[in-house]
Amino acid sequence: MSLTLLTFIRSLNHHHHLSKLSSLRLHRYISSNTNPTSSSSPTSPPFEVNLSHPIYMIWGSNTGVGKTLVSTGIAASVISQSSTTTSGGTKFSYIKPVQTGFPSDSDSRYVYRKLSEIFIRKKPPSGFVFSNQVIKASNAAAEHVVGGETEGGIGNVGLRELCSVEERRIVGELDGVSELVCKTMFGWKEAVSPHLAAEREGASVEDSVVLESLQKCLKFCSRGGGKDENGVWTIIETAGGVASPGPSGTLQCDLYRPFRLPGILVGDGGLGGISGTISAYESLKLRGYDVVAVIFEDNGLNNEVPLMSYLRNRVPVLVLPPVPRDHSNNLMEWFDESQNVFFFLMKTMLSTYSERVQRLQDMPRKAGDIFWWPFTQHGLVPEETVTVIDSRCGENFAVHKVTSSEVITHQFDACASWWTQGPDTTLQAELARDMGYAAARFGHVMFPENVYEPALRCAELLLDGVGRGWASRTFFSDNGSTAIEIALKMAFRKFSFDHGILLDFQKENIVKQPIEFKVLALHGSYHGDTLGAMEAQAPSPFTGFLQQPWYRGRGLFLDPPTVFICNGHWDLSTPKVLQSDIIKPNDTAFRSRDELFSGSRDYSDLAKSYSTYISRQLSSLPGLGTSTHIGALIMEPGMALNFLVAINQIHIVEYFTGPMEPLLNICHKSVVIQGAGGMHMIDPLFQRVLVKECRSRKIPVIFDEVFTGFWRLGVESAAEMLGCVPDIACFAKLLTGGVIPLSVTLATNDVFNSFKGDSKLMALLHGHSYSAHAMGCTAAVKAIQWFKDPLTNLNMAAEGRHLKELWDVELVNQISSHPSVQRVVALGTVCALELCTEGSDVGYGCLYGTSLIRKLREDGIYMRLLGNVIYLMCGPCTSPLVCNQLLNKVYERLHEFSQAKPTEVRSLAFMYRFDP
Amino acid sequence: MSLTLLTFIRSLNHHHHLSKLSSLRLHRYISSNTNPTSSSSPTSPPFEVNLSHPIYMIWGSNTGVGKTLVSTGIAASVISQSSTTTSGGTKFSYIKPVQTGFPSDSDSRYVYRKLSEIFIRKKPPSGFVFSNQVIKASNAAAEHVVGGETEGGIGNVGLRELCSVEERRIVGELDGVSELVCKTMFGWKEAVSPHLAAEREGASVEDSVVLESLQKCLKFCSRGGGKDENGVWTIIETAGGVASPGPSGTLQCDLYRPFRLPGILVGDGGLGGISGTISAYESLKLRGYDVVAVIFEDNGLNNEVPLMSYLRNRVPVLVLPPVPRDHSNNLMEWFDESQNVFFFLMKTMLSTYSERVQRLQDMPRKAGDIFWWPFTQHGLVPEETVTVIDSRCGENFAVHKVTSSEVITHQFDACASWWTQGPDTTLQAELARDMGYAAARFGHVMFPENVYEPALRCAELLLDGVGRGWASRTFFSDNGSTAIEIALKMAFRKFSFDHGILLDFQKENIVKQPIEFKVLALHGSYHGDTLGAMEAQAPSPFTGFLQQPWYRGRGLFLDPPTVFICNGHWDLSTPKVLQSDIIKPNDTAFRSRDELFSGSRDYSDLAKSYSTYISRQLSSLPGLGTSTHIGALIMEPGMALNFLVAINQIHIVEYFTGPMEPLLNICHKSVVIQGAGGMHMIDPLFQRVLVKECRSRKIPVIFDEVFTGFWRLGVESAAEMLGCVPDIACFAKLLTGGVIPLSVTLATNDVFNSFKGDSKLMALLHGHSYSAHAMGCTAAVKAIQWFKDPLTNLNMAAEGRHLKELWDVELVNQISSHPSVQRVVALGTVCALELCTEGSDVGYGCLYGTSLIRKLREDGIYMRLLGNVIYLMCGPCTSPLVCNQLLNKVYERLHEFSQAKPTEVRSLAFMYRFDP
Repeated sequence: MSLTLLTFIRSLNHHHHLSKLSSLRLHRYISSNTNPTSSSSPTSPPFEVNLSHPIYMIWGSNTGVGKTLVSTGIAASVISQSSTTTSGGTKFSYIKPVQTGFPSDSDSRYVYRKLSEIFIRKKPPSGFVFSNQVIKASNAAAEHVVGGETEGGIGNVGLRELCSVEERRIVGELDGVSELVCKTMFGWKEAVSPHLAAEREGASVEDSVVLESLQKCLKFCSRGGGKDENGVWTIIETAGGVASPGPSGTLQCDLYRPFRLPGILVGDGGLGGISGTISAYESLKLRGYDVVAVIFEDNGLNNEVPLMSYLRNRVPVLVLPPVPRDHSNNLMEWFDESQNVFFFLMKTMLSTYSERVQRLQDMPRKAGDIFWWPFTQHGLVPEETVTVIDSRCGENFAVHKVTSSEVITHQFDACASWWTQGPDTTLQAELARDMGYAAARFGHVMFPENVYEPALRCAELLLDGVGRGWASRTFFSDNGSTAIEIALKMAFRKFSFDHGILLDFQKENIVKQPIEFKVLALHGSYHGDTLGAMEAQAPSPFTGFLQQPWYRGRGLFLDPPTVFICNGHWDLSTPKVLQSDIIKPNDTAFRSRDELFSGSRDYSDLAKSYSTYISRQLSSLPGLGTSTHIGALIMEPGMALNFLVAINQIHIVEYFTGPMEPLLNICHKSVVIQGAGGMHMIDPLFQRVLVKECRSRKIPVIFDEVFTGFWRLGVESAAEMLGCVPDIACFAKLLTGGVIPLSVTLATNDVFNSFKGDSKLMALLHGHSYSAHAMGCTAAVKAIQWFKDPLTNLNMAAEGRHLKELWDVELVNQISSHPSVQRVVALGTVCALELCTEGSDVGYGCLYGTSLIRKLREDGIYMRLLGNVIYLMCGPCTSPLVCNQLLNKVYERLHEFSQAKPTEVRSLAFMYRFDP
Repeated sequence: MSLTLLTFIRSLNHHHHLSKLSSLRLHRYISSNTNPTSSSSPTSPPFEVNLSHPIYMIWGSNTGVGKTLVSTGIAASVISQSSTTTSGGTKFSYIKPVQTGFPSDSDSRYVYRKLSEIFIRKKPPSGFVFSNQVIKASNAAAEHVVGGETEGGIGNVGLRELCSVEERRIVGELDGVSELVCKTMFGWKEAVSPHLAAEREGASVEDSVVLESLQKCLKFCSRGGGKDENGVWTIIETAGGVASPGPSGTLQCDLYRPFRLPGILVGDGGLGGISGTISAYESLKLRGYDVVAVIFEDNGLNNEVPLMSYLRNRVPVLVLPPVPRDHSNNLMEWFDESQNVFFFLMKTMLSTYSERVQRLQDMPRKAGDIFWWPFTQHGLVPEETVTVIDSRCGENFAVHKVTSSEVITHQFDACASWWTQGPDTTLQAELARDMGYAAARFGHVMFPENVYEPALRCAELLLDGVGRGWASRTFFSDNGSTAIEIALKMAFRKFSFDHGILLDFQKENIVKQPIEFKVLALHGSYHGDTLGAMEAQAPSPFTGFLQQPWYRGRGLFLDPPTVFICNGHWDLSTPKVLQSDIIKPNDTAFRSRDELFSGSRDYSDLAKSYSTYISRQLSSLPGLGTSTHIGALIMEPGMALNFLVAINQIHIVEYFTGPMEPLLNICHKSVVIQGAGGMHMIDPLFQRVLVKECRSRKIPVIFDEVFTGFWRLGVESAAEMLGCVPDIACFAKLLTGGVIPLSVTLATNDVFNSFKGDSKLMALLHGHSYSAHAMGCTAAVKAIQWFKDPLTNLNMAAEGRHLKELWDVELVNQISSHPSVQRVVALGTVCALELCTEGSDVGYGCLYGTSLIRKLREDGIYMRLLGNVIYLMCGPCTSPLVCNQLLNKVYERLHEFSQAKPTEVRSLAFMYRFDP
């Protein structure tokens, strides 16, 4: 190999041609000022990380711990490794997103130059092309840069594109050419923290701009240009310590979190370095990062010993030889000495990367083999349709996807992780800290007869929030279903107390004659899957013999009137039994949703009809008041996502509802489907009348707010929206902000008092081991406060009573007028679309929905189907901009699909099931 | 005020008398070498923190950030504040537990001297006594100390007591005298990390010794000596950064965790300081510490801005003026300038302290007002008996107690937080990190049709562990009760499939005639509180009309034979129906527990008797095989803590069991109690025969391992102990190591296949929103691995199949022979004692137990009562030494009590309830 030794040229403002053998060039492009706030994230494509080659972040436990030396060492190791083989060379990219002290300091330039120096010395058999580029710099910094200084006149603020590239080529003996691409994304002049430099130089950059720019760089670096896949590598070196602020002030560990790239932590070998390294490691873990190795310079203090003990040998701890402090030392000897360490590091990075990719690829098969998913017919879930979720970031899933390439890409979790999800990115980070804290402070501590801060604070917040004005007691349990079981026990006791049954029982010690308790409930309601909760539901395929032979259905189930948006207007649909009544048109059409909820409707004729209907139904119950009692009213205030399906094959014509999932099987198999799908919001007037009727009969009222509670419908409690209060209410799902299971049954003092006595046997003898567990209560405390504070939840209207409108009213109305859409309900964080059926064929809507959802997942929206209903569900903090974007995408796809003929839709959906 | 100006005297080895007005003294005591490993924690009194005055830790985000300056500033502020009032002066204590670089560096000497200097300048109206003492130093360090150098001859290793005190007195104009007590606990010579210095100087100190020494210092410092309570303060300055190792190598943030003192974090105002400060803060939070303020020296970088933003203004961030770098500067001006900042800090510390104490005092009342505890008759829980749990540390609660003084003190959580608790201190810290990581990486992501690492890994570990050899599928839910509901649904389907019922149903689409499914279960078993789980239990006060009118009791309930230790021997008790059979003495007495579990018993006559009994019971069921089916066998393999109570007042004579809590009311009220309490371990042979009988009849077998699973009984799954496998098994409680709710129902492939089909309606349509939640699965992954790894669980026998014997067999036998004890069961992590009753009066045992438990709580053991049974439950990692200590204390108290006459016991217990 022949090689020309070069000296580095610091300043060169024209093309400089060198020999054919090696060259050092500096390109110049047009530089321009960019508007730092011009880019907005909502319209940008979802974040994506290419998995075809290793990409790592280089983190520092502090500033000045040698991140750049480590970057250089890794690069040298990778390039050497490939240059000694004939496998076509390497493309190694080094990205420095944020550089301060620029241009006098430039880590990308250091890596570029140091590697040139190393390889000129090494004389590897393959050739190389090394380059270094600084993309943008503050005007203050650009002035001092070759190619930056002449473009003045715009004042000393803002950022300027530099786009000058230093390049060095060496032709080797072998064909393979190794590439080193060094890039600095943004440079600032002052050698201080980026946020400070950006501020002082009037050249700030929004987080979204940094991320998009990094995304672009990553894309560029992933293009191997014919290189062996094993030869492509990218590393990204952060600035300062792990929690040093980026240009906007956002901590870097938070800033880069959407990519969640695996990392190398450069530790501190000095005095105090153990502490700094461990804390930095913990800050990374506390943001969901994986750290694959810790490496640091030896300072003779054996810092590796406590570090290895702390890491329990799970993460390798590597020690580099001491770095000569003499500035004139070119470190060539040091790099030689460090070679083995960097080689080991590279191997670790490579094997961790390969194992990760292998695991991601294997996961769908393994999941299909050993999981038993709830509500899932496994035979209908081919391996290819299983979603591998690598992580979540705020409202987005990061999913593993193999299409043309293998990537981790973002999808908006429009199922709100099955109706529980609440946190945005910031709240997720806060909750992670709180979960760590609660586990460390309390772990779990038993509840009965004890008190601890998170449980007490949570109870206080509940009584001051969703229970305000009526509730006095908090009974904690684990999920919605157990909360309902407890509520029923409470209600029956209260009823027994109020109606003299308890007194009789206490006098005689036995129940004089068999008493049958029933609940008053609504057809199509869902309250959970444990037997007690099931019994409060009307019969359906979900409660039949196939599921639980013990189910009897101990309720009087009413048909509720429903409301919805159709052709741009709110409309009312009443059950058949009411349709003979004379209902005034005024009573069934509404100018707005507010009118629908207005208390003035209480005095309408419709209210009277409702009341009559309810009374009639109650009096039709045989033995009522003697052998049979309606022991409780149970209902979901506000909306229930129901759907009605009649499947002639099993002769069940009933409502069913709840977290019941795509009846894809119905579409898929050759069942004749006769019913119609539907999604219903119960008329609030009907619910109010129902409560009133029960009150007058001393029937305890249970509100099942498991789904509706905590801003799901735009208000903290749906009871608030209805304008009436229950005796008992159940909350779960969003209660913890959507991170871990916890539920609570709130009750009035009267309910509580019906359990009082001097015998333990009078007490409510129900409990679960993790009752009021500290972590759940801690999460609830954070979430309850976060959601209602206008400082943390920008969706909160100033008075703190309801969320801003998240779904653009105009657009919702437009969608409700679309020919493919039967009706829409948009309320709070939910927007549900019922797709048209062909005649009474719900199958059509279902097939149609399946195809739609398939397309929307490609668009980065993870949605699921409820019969012929598709829905978008966001968190209480999700920006209306994002909601709008989601809705627009749905609208676009709807439009696209309505162009296709039904037969096409059918075949498309069919294909999806069989050839995903 | 008159004052003599003094110069500091560095070296003084005799008493030095100064004027009456001021004195500087140096006491000398006998110095001696101490054995650094002589102290062992198990025998030491529980950790205790006095709440009568503020005690704070001073943490540093790094070494050299000015912790000592902050300590000095706080001390100056507190002393100034009191010296300007007439309220009798202050006692301010400064403790430096660990000092390296000693004696040339001594932070306590610095604080002592600097404060002397400040107050000599300030001339406060009150007098002062300032002192500084170094308690122990390594011999290497002691040689250089006044008072240390002459005592040579023992070689340059080990620690030496110094006990020399520097003291300075100034008499003021006012009566009040302010005291400053400075103490260094341990000093090493080399200016490196304490663990390194200790190692190099051959003078290591165990963690327990540091903690005991600190406890002693704290006690000394708390004695105000007549000082106004508001005037007593203690601060403890750590060494280096928050995660710097202590003398043994344990990180300081872990080392001091048992005290969980609130802290001040001294941040870093320099470049990179934001990151270091935030990470240090996070490391403290991740160990359950509360940080009440962050303070740092200004470096002109405005580090407070991002810090305040990060802390969301919840924790004050204070900025000190730049510290002059000139070594000749005595900082007097700097302290003057900083005065306001320190004053504010002091006020913050004081108000946070007062609020905390106030809150702790208020908690019992508030809890009683708004909680609704499970299994609790609130009327029987007076405010004074409510336990305020401030935190937990491994197996210990830190509880708030007000007796002669107000303290936070440790109690061993012998209820294993209601049978869930597993982690020791180390695992708790690991789980906290993992919980933070899981929340940050995943929060919660929906499960059906998806896969993510923690769920997959957890499923793999379950099938390879507790499900090994039989289970193929994992169905996740939230708690034991839901796991049982799911198991029942699985079993009924499997039964229908195996017995042609499903085929009939599918052919006809209806059930031809009403089919009644029953379960085969054991009297006295408990499986949960949701209706389905209740139905599988025999009738009891816990299932009666008062609790859930819907309960019918759909089972055939058998009376199981039980085994126990009595008078030092394992013994068998058979149910009445078997007592007519001829049972050989050989079959009912056992030389050891192993004999009891031996498979050779399968061929005994007793096994035949069991088999006959079971068959007889089955055939007695009316309509069996036609209208009625036994759809499942459900039982807890191994031990069930049952107790039998007959309460004539409500005419219920039945077994009941489970997390049913002290029937204190029964003792308390004037109910005539006729039954006998008992705690039962089911004969393993009986359970094996039962399984065999069901197998032969194709009745699916459910093992309820919610309580017994994961080493509770000494093996990972109790099935293993029985030597037979189920078709379905339920796990919860210890599954997550005992930190958050998660449960799983495991099933064989045959069970899974009975849900297969091409219709979704054939699938198991049961699910909960948080199914397989990422945090729960993450905790489970850690716990499952931790418990069975001999490297992390020292109780694990090398082959990893069972735990070491935790309860000393000798001592258990002794206790079982005690006249007050009827029988004992000791197995795995459980040791239960059934107390003697007077004839059939369980009330006596109950009263007796109540008194015992009261005494044992004073001894630092938090126990609860199950009728007349008291039990100790530890975690799978709890040291046998600790178990032994607990058992010994119980034995001691038993002995003490058996001295007292029954009437005395009775009145004592009575008193406890009414005058706690």
